[in-house]
Amino acid sequence: MEDVVVLDRIEAMKDLVDANLEAIIAKQTAIYGQVAEVSGQVVLAGGKRIRPILVMLAYEIAGGEDNEEIMPLALSSEFIHSATLVHDDINDESLTRRGQETIHAKLGQAKGIIAGDWLFSQGFGLGGRYEQSVVEVIAHYCSKLASSEFTQIDHVLDLSTSPEDYLEIVKGKTAGPFAAGCKGAAMVAGASKNECELLFEFGMELGIAFQLVDDLLDIRGDERMGKPRGADVYEGKMTLPIIHALTILHGPQRARLAEILHDFKDSLFDELITLLDFGESLKYSEILISNHLERALSKLDAFADCDAKQLLKHVVHVVQNRHS
Amino acid sequence: MEDVVVLDRIEAMKDLVDANLEAIIAKQTAIYGQVAEVSGQVVLAGGKRIRPILVMLAYEIAGGEDNEEIMPLALSSEFIHSATLVHDDINDESLTRRGQETIHAKLGQAKGIIAGDWLFSQGFGLGGRYEQSVVEVIAHYCSKLASSEFTQIDHVLDLSTSPEDYLEIVKGKTAGPFAAGCKGAAMVAGASKNECELLFEFGMELGIAFQLVDDLLDIRGDERMGKPRGADVYEGKMTLPIIHALTILHGPQRARLAEILHDFKDSLFDELITLLDFGESLKYSEILISNHLERALSKLDAFADCDAKQLLKHVVHVVQNRHS
Repeated sequence: MEDVVVLDRIEAMKDLVDANLEAIIAKQTAIYGQVAEVSGQVVLAGGKRIRPILVMLAYEIAGGEDNEEIMPLALSSEFIHSATLVHDDINDESLTRRGQETIHAKLGQAKGIIAGDWLFSQGFGLGGRYEQSVVEVIAHYCSKLASSEFTQIDHVLDLSTSPEDYLEIVKGKTAGPFAAGCKGAAMVAGASKNECELLFEFGMELGIAFQLVDDLLDIRGDERMGKPRGADVYEGKMTLPIIHALTILHGPQRARLAEILHDFKDSLFDELITLLDFGESLKYSEILISNHLERALSKLDAFADCDAKQLLKHVVHVVQNRHS
Repeated sequence: MEDVVVLDRIEAMKDLVDANLEAIIAKQTAIYGQVAEVSGQVVLAGGKRIRPILVMLAYEIAGGEDNEEIMPLALSSEFIHSATLVHDDINDESLTRRGQETIHAKLGQAKGIIAGDWLFSQGFGLGGRYEQSVVEVIAHYCSKLASSEFTQIDHVLDLSTSPEDYLEIVKGKTAGPFAAGCKGAAMVAGASKNECELLFEFGMELGIAFQLVDDLLDIRGDERMGKPRGADVYEGKMTLPIIHALTILHGPQRARLAEILHDFKDSLFDELITLLDFGESLKYSEILISNHLERALSKLDAFADCDAKQLLKHVVHVVQNRHS
């Protein structure tokens, strides 16, 4: 495929996902009222639809041929993702997301919590229509997501957090859902166990890179998902550049970094960046991102050349270069 | 069956449910750690297991014969119920539940929200292994549960809440899950559409009565689910006795009732009861409870006499007479 055709096809998939989401939310709002309306706004404000597109492409590369068969699983991933965003925003006390006021900021915390529950219910209703083995993959990653968030909370402002701790959290929180979506899709397509496993690993590597990029964006200040720059630092989240710098720096520099992290404010941003640069910590993250993306690509080697393979490679490229 | 045999069988079902819950939670705690441990404590502290027992009995009366076939659906109802309790306790700022400290009180709000999400994931994992039609029934009542909670929040301290508003909330919040559990179980058993519908209505009527009893217990002060007496009144929840009294009372009595509701404290409890007695509002609730329970029983008429029918009648009797 030509590059322009690749872009067209990705765009067409995104449009198809958007159209389906819009139709579901319109229908559900007629049934469930305000909870569906405000939860739906969160879903519809979403951006690149990377999760559902991955599900659709994993299905296709694994031999699936019927968009309608895989669409509920693709949409399910977006509903569940939105549910976690709504609850995360409560826990992070975020007032905006994707440029909109968050539900809890607008309607109070109680409605925020329940809106997240509604989104979960929708996600499970869509994902629950597949065979038990597929449902178990999805339910497991949702449970794992919760346990990783517990771990993440335990590590807030824990300056002894190791890169291994970080990777465990990221695998559960971000990469696991990517991996489970790809694997579930392959299972629906009737792929071999080996292919399911390769696509699981593809999703995992891609998801790790995705989160590493997200961490960089938080520090570099691109307007990531409508959240303000430095949100992670304010929340005391131990992201990889920070963990790396805490490991590399010594003496007064490390002490100063610890001080900055414990009482962060906007005016300290330049100093934080200087320290991270001194530790070459942003560069280190960039190298890791490239490594994980290369490993993601290598998982596709076993698959015959086809449109879906080219499109998945494009998604890898998009993750490498994303700025929001 | 003799009465003593009925009690024995209900007890045996409860033991079977408990044993299954304990096994799952032990297994999941090994996988998911703290989130499974603390969420599991909420599940295991649970009482009569009325939801899973209803599912099992509805399955049996509808012709189902394999406990293992229905057990995941039965357990699913208890996990989902526990999830809503954990989130409700955050929204109600309750510090204890079933005699235990609530998760958010013990570990902070963020972990409380996530623990509820974990319980939902478990519930959906168990419920998601059935056919699409069954999954849709479950997913719908979960979504409906959320929309009813939105409505309930909108009616907090809304003294113009009508009995119809109340019934809508109760149907979504409490009775819907009972009804969906019974219907889903009948579907798994392969019952006719008519039987599925009858069992749905049975669950709905029973669930309405269950909530009305719950409302009375809150006012009468039995130690309901380990929550303190008057919790609903403190939270401004419009329960039926209060809605009824607001409708029946006039002039200074209604004004005083409104005053009490807006600024409730323990010292006003006796006066509240006096006003409710004057309006015969507790008696009115009792009559409604009997009516709904009779309607529940009438839904069983179409089923041939069998053990399950006798056991379901016993459950109706238990709801009528519950004190906790």
